[in-house]
Amino acid sequence: MTQLISSPASNLPEAIPTIEDLSDAALSAQLQWVLDHKTKPLGALGRLEAIAHQIGCILGTTAPQLQAPHALVFAADHGLAQQGVSAYPSDVTWQMVANMLAGGAAISVLTRQHGLALKLVDCGVAKALAPHPDLIDAKVAAGTADASQQAAMAQAQMWQAINAGRQLLRELPGNAILLGEMGIGNTSAAALILARLSGRSIEECAGAGTGVAAEALAHKRRVLQQVLDLHAGAKEPLEVLASMGGLEIATMVGTVLQAALERRVIVVDGFVTSAAVLVAARLQPLVLQRCIFSHQSHEQAHGLMLEAMEAKALLQMDMRLGEGSGAALAWPLLESACRILREMASFESAQVSERSSTT
Amino acid sequence: MTQLISSPASNLPEAIPTIEDLSDAALSAQLQWVLDHKTKPLGALGRLEAIAHQIGCILGTTAPQLQAPHALVFAADHGLAQQGVSAYPSDVTWQMVANMLAGGAAISVLTRQHGLALKLVDCGVAKALAPHPDLIDAKVAAGTADASQQAAMAQAQMWQAINAGRQLLRELPGNAILLGEMGIGNTSAAALILARLSGRSIEECAGAGTGVAAEALAHKRRVLQQVLDLHAGAKEPLEVLASMGGLEIATMVGTVLQAALERRVIVVDGFVTSAAVLVAARLQPLVLQRCIFSHQSHEQAHGLMLEAMEAKALLQMDMRLGEGSGAALAWPLLESACRILREMASFESAQVSERSSTT
Repeated sequence: MTQLISSPASNLPEAIPTIEDLSDAALSAQLQWVLDHKTKPLGALGRLEAIAHQIGCILGTTAPQLQAPHALVFAADHGLAQQGVSAYPSDVTWQMVANMLAGGAAISVLTRQHGLALKLVDCGVAKALAPHPDLIDAKVAAGTADASQQAAMAQAQMWQAINAGRQLLRELPGNAILLGEMGIGNTSAAALILARLSGRSIEECAGAGTGVAAEALAHKRRVLQQVLDLHAGAKEPLEVLASMGGLEIATMVGTVLQAALERRVIVVDGFVTSAAVLVAARLQPLVLQRCIFSHQSHEQAHGLMLEAMEAKALLQMDMRLGEGSGAALAWPLLESACRILREMASFESAQVSERSSTT
Repeated sequence: MTQLISSPASNLPEAIPTIEDLSDAALSAQLQWVLDHKTKPLGALGRLEAIAHQIGCILGTTAPQLQAPHALVFAADHGLAQQGVSAYPSDVTWQMVANMLAGGAAISVLTRQHGLALKLVDCGVAKALAPHPDLIDAKVAAGTADASQQAAMAQAQMWQAINAGRQLLRELPGNAILLGEMGIGNTSAAALILARLSGRSIEECAGAGTGVAAEALAHKRRVLQQVLDLHAGAKEPLEVLASMGGLEIATMVGTVLQAALERRVIVVDGFVTSAAVLVAARLQPLVLQRCIFSHQSHEQAHGLMLEAMEAKALLQMDMRLGEGSGAALAWPLLESACRILREMASFESAQVSERSSTT
């Protein structure tokens, strides 16, 4: 088990790295040329071609190869869960972490299917977790404080989480990551971030999560409105993150920024991971050049979240599990996109006739 | 190269097999129980759960395993192509068959990625094709007749194609097939079938195909209207198939019926393969219990085609290539669905707490 917090993670400055524009007109044109000369009608592979183009731009090549992809599941508990905003007790956070490590969770199944490395990141699980080869210890605290009473985390804790997220990414091999999360109460944190950063109402932003409905959902929204009111002064992305976010979200913000800095492909999952990307993108908009949004969650506000980033998700499977399950499910599509670029024949190489001149 | 036409395929009667209802209330309830006890909120895997349930019903088990899946690409030429309804010359049919066999086409790349066996079926390619281990010879004729002048095929040819489709499926191992096709002019045949069987206008049913636009598209529609007028008397599914279909479509109708009879999982691709399924479903509606519609094509009328079968496709990737590319792209999602059933832990086995009683 890597111990990040007691390691040189703290050597990172309390600062957000600058994410540069990776636009390269020559490479972009070259990628389009390669795609257009493959043995298919122009554009006939639709969004698969768009992903191929994007991955080519991120990795800086017309023959991209995804290497050593890691699915990272960021886990933490939420003080706000005490207010009854979730259908499940907080203990489910550590129980599901254990289930993921044991191979029984949906993300375990999907990563095994696709040969993805699965790493759990303890960002702030309340319970002390036993060491495990696939568990990264980046615990900042035993969960956040109850955001309906005070800031979810102190500034120093937020920076500790962001830097831990950056550091763990720096230690990972490969050129692609998949974001996942586990934390009872974290759709509430994501809804709060969306509400404040987009200016939308909590009715629009807060949905069923793992399954609250009717009166329980009305209660969740009342609690979240109280949180928004208490932290009315928090408007900048990092203020919003510290006052109403979660430790797994803050850690992910750091990981997303570092991955963007290193030009890795970032595969985003659902509502909660998107909230981390939203914060990162408000800090450094060009992180979005490196992000592929794997699926649109059934969670009602995920559409609004994607809209706030002008993003369109690949899959629409009505899923609302988190864990990175949507990202892992979409993974083979990214592989396909790269293989199309690398392996498909061109009209010339395959001696296939091009369009007739009459049409 | 299997020689089907000179083989006992002709022993099959000129009759459509009866497809029985595979509904099994006990198995269905058992599948739902297993899904509901997996470590996730109820229904949180959305459409993946629905696919898992469907595949479980088709294969008759709560632990389905897809075995020896074959991607079948049915190829044929169309006499109607002489009327300038496609952006590409007819020679592209055999050239693309050769490209697929050589491993350079999109379907070659995707089947290689997913470990799917790829078989080309020569149902009626104009050119004589050299033998190849992955080419099944089911050639009925060197393409259809020009449907704007006469019936595309004779009754006897149609039955020969349907029976060849049934016979080749009977000789395939495994419990799942993916449908694909190649044939310059075949989106026209599919549009004609849709128009006649759904009662919709040719404007609604005929789109760009591989890439006709503006005046070329208007021309395509005028030609197709002439075909509809010429065959105004063809109303029954098999009459429509013979008068305006294609040999690859007729062969697919046979394969779909036989696969349904044998309770195999049928993964449908885009517009043209859906036209074959539409014909099969009008003959035997319960074939649809065995069909999974992999993607909704960019071809404008595919949505109407799906609607005519009350089907919803898994992916929406704006693809319009055919070949079975959408079916192969979606394949890992089916694999995931089966693995969820087979490999995910239950709340009991993983000792994860269920929902709190208060919500």
